[in-house]
Amino acid sequence: MTRSMLFIVGIGPGGRDHMTLRALEAIGAADVVVGYTRYIELLEGLLEGKEVVSTGMTREVDRCRAAVKQALGGRSVAVVSTGDPGVYGMAGLVLELLERMDPEGTVPVEIVPGVTAVSAAASLLGAPLMTDFAVVSLSDLLTPWEVIRTRLEAAASADFVLALYNPRSRRRVRHLEEACRILLRHRPPDTPAGIVRHALRPGQQVLVTTLAGVPGCEVDMMSVVLVGNRATRTWRDRLVTPRGYPLGGEPSASPEQAGSRIPNPPSPHPLPRHDSSAP
Amino acid sequence: MTRSMLFIVGIGPGGRDHMTLRALEAIGAADVVVGYTRYIELLEGLLEGKEVVSTGMTREVDRCRAAVKQALGGRSVAVVSTGDPGVYGMAGLVLELLERMDPEGTVPVEIVPGVTAVSAAASLLGAPLMTDFAVVSLSDLLTPWEVIRTRLEAAASADFVLALYNPRSRRRVRHLEEACRILLRHRPPDTPAGIVRHALRPGQQVLVTTLAGVPGCEVDMMSVVLVGNRATRTWRDRLVTPRGYPLGGEPSASPEQAGSRIPNPPSPHPLPRHDSSAP
Repeated sequence: MTRSMLFIVGIGPGGRDHMTLRALEAIGAADVVVGYTRYIELLEGLLEGKEVVSTGMTREVDRCRAAVKQALGGRSVAVVSTGDPGVYGMAGLVLELLERMDPEGTVPVEIVPGVTAVSAAASLLGAPLMTDFAVVSLSDLLTPWEVIRTRLEAAASADFVLALYNPRSRRRVRHLEEACRILLRHRPPDTPAGIVRHALRPGQQVLVTTLAGVPGCEVDMMSVVLVGNRATRTWRDRLVTPRGYPLGGEPSASPEQAGSRIPNPPSPHPLPRHDSSAP
Repeated sequence: MTRSMLFIVGIGPGGRDHMTLRALEAIGAADVVVGYTRYIELLEGLLEGKEVVSTGMTREVDRCRAAVKQALGGRSVAVVSTGDPGVYGMAGLVLELLERMDPEGTVPVEIVPGVTAVSAAASLLGAPLMTDFAVVSLSDLLTPWEVIRTRLEAAASADFVLALYNPRSRRRVRHLEEACRILLRHRPPDTPAGIVRHALRPGQQVLVTTLAGVPGCEVDMMSVVLVGNRATRTWRDRLVTPRGYPLGGEPSASPEQAGSRIPNPPSPHPLPRHDSSAP
């Protein structure tokens, strides 16, 4: 007899190496593990003796409803998401279903955060994020394209680094081009960009390109596209967005000099409009 | 004799539980561990037999320069950041220093991503992110306040969920109020918000409030503030931003019904301007 419990677990990008100890523990403690078939496969070896409920890509509601039912039935359940369950993952859906199916809140819930796909992709590209960034999914399955477009425009105009999830699917081929057209109104065509497919799991591909080059690249639902801000540079095969630390030629003041402070650099992130003639 | 190597390691929010296996391995493989004093303390027990270089909060450049020197001297070095080293962490600074100090790229570098502070905070608040979100640091030490304000305005106007890092310091007491005033031009005062201090490490405090309530709360540099978008709700003590899955009263189509698809709901994220009279 196990105690009823509902874990919503982020397994990180997919490889065992980038799971947290708590995620391993939560899966270990569960009687039932629920997830998308392809992600369940990443957990091979951790699931012996457990009941596994796995369904295809668009069956999220069924999967999460099954998980809540099992937990209400007294079992210990782990719903697994790749990356972090709070970032385009299952945390919200499970809570929405609990609100309906367990309004009294009888089932204890623990959300176990994980390494996001954008953190995984960024780690392979160098340091593209570093300063303020916006994360936007280009999938218009649940969010109208008009809203997505507004967000891209706003984030581009304010010089956010951009991370694009779900950049292209078999059915949805033009959205990434349109997204890049929006960004090109605010950033030069040679703005450094990167595409990482299957970050930190088998099949990994890493590509450094430019904003203008993104639409011509191989990109799919397993990819994350990162577009630098106006300060992002490339060094060797890496993207770097300087946060603005003054490096100078001189070593900075010695550690003993307590209370000294890195001074404000003169406007490291200027925000002029760029008169790019769209490609 | 160890092979020269430079790891830039995200240790996650701080507790051992939320470190990845790769982060533990990288620290285990290092001769020298470099980090901010308070974060080095979180690694107690992992550092036996290692040289430790730790300095205070504003000594990032010195710390990272020391790390690069050690790696150039043939040692295996781990620079540790809390959260993810690519999100307001040390990855960018180390790469910028390598560009100057090791222009040929002789030192192998591995960036180990970690669970970010925003993922940790979100996991404790429920599911506030879930859809498109923007991450903004309110520290104007390295970014001019005018740029930060522009980003807040843009993100608020396009209905991004907002995660605010470095929301308030002892010297910088008005920035959070001004940030909330900007957000209140686009969102109702009762927009759900959450404040998490020391997420997933000793001293953790979790508070669910509203956008109008944020400035009056206890907030410091160890806190992350999350502000919902126009769809974010509270359920019991949790924030939920619905991603837009149609839940209906009826169970959705059976899993056997291959090829069926969750339909687009009617505009789950409307973007009307809110005529809030500022508080």
